[in-house]
Amino acid sequence: MAGIEIEALIRQLSKIPRLGPRSARRIALALIKRRETLLDPLVQTLGAAAQAVKICTTCGNYDSQDPCSICADQRRDAALICVVEDVADLWALERTAVFRGRYHVTGGLLSPLDGIGPADLKLERLIARAKAPETREVIMALSATVDGQTTAHYIAERLQGTDTVVSGLAHGMPIGGELDYLDDGTISAALRARRPV
Amino acid sequence: MAGIEIEALIRQLSKIPRLGPRSARRIALALIKRRETLLDPLVQTLGAAAQAVKICTTCGNYDSQDPCSICADQRRDAALICVVEDVADLWALERTAVFRGRYHVTGGLLSPLDGIGPADLKLERLIARAKAPETREVIMALSATVDGQTTAHYIAERLQGTDTVVSGLAHGMPIGGELDYLDDGTISAALRARRPV
Repeated sequence: MAGIEIEALIRQLSKIPRLGPRSARRIALALIKRRETLLDPLVQTLGAAAQAVKICTTCGNYDSQDPCSICADQRRDAALICVVEDVADLWALERTAVFRGRYHVTGGLLSPLDGIGPADLKLERLIARAKAPETREVIMALSATVDGQTTAHYIAERLQGTDTVVSGLAHGMPIGGELDYLDDGTISAALRARRPV
Repeated sequence: MAGIEIEALIRQLSKIPRLGPRSARRIALALIKRRETLLDPLVQTLGAAAQAVKICTTCGNYDSQDPCSICADQRRDAALICVVEDVADLWALERTAVFRGRYHVTGGLLSPLDGIGPADLKLERLIARAKAPETREVIMALSATVDGQTTAHYIAERLQGTDTVVSGLAHGMPIGGELDYLDDGTISAALRARRPV
């Protein structure tokens, strides 16, 4: 109905995770409508990204260099490794600008129910980094889910008997959160971890 | 933090209407993660669309040909012109496969409050098509809003004294709709337009 090129574009856009056919149509239309300001520059930037982006062989981050700019930055503390599931989580932590160590992206979580074991996540590379003499602490910044906890515990067990400390993010009330909207698990955790004001 | 190419891609994606920075980051990551199946084909299809897509000089539809495949299709009834605000609306109507006439895309609605007048919408082209001897009926498939009604009435007024009939979409309950979730305006309209069962 709208030319094979547009149909192909909508089909391709709807393959992006969490974009349904409706969003794909909307985006395709917006791009076509603003060719000079949206479509043409997007072709450029996508092409440049496809050319340039590498996966850091040390930590798993995406960057135009390998090792990535975080692993290559000598001002960042090599003694701290923050373990995240996904590059999106790494970006979220970087936006806060609080953490000045390095990262390790697992690319997933251990999930015995789904048959995802340590070999699938290439955790040996992380264990080797964590056991290296310069590493002092491994911070598990994983989801507060069963799979997240399973992964954190597996890594902690593997590092028992070494000098590396394993820590995890604190649980508690989100900033700006309202108590009566919180789930019971979070309220209990916040209560147990209460601190002097 | 993630290479200038990725930053540029996220910035470009977040310019797409109704995609915020969060969606832009999510889409950029998904594309980079699946380069062979998502990113590279998208560069291809976007480039092809940028090359091929034209605006139909008759009706305003997007297609790889001008006149578009609907205007060029001799099996479609040239006596019926369905007026829509946007190409997205045209696509929505085409998906139902109920309408076998032709279209006219206004690209907007008359809005005295926002200073959008007949000249801004190039309505003269529509009036000329509507007054042409082969045109029998103009169907106003515009939003049921003040601006939609203003636009419909303006076009109807301009066609007074001609042989062209001006009609509008029926108002009533959406199929599958529940009465107590409907607004009062729709319920009143559905009641006034009641039909024998």
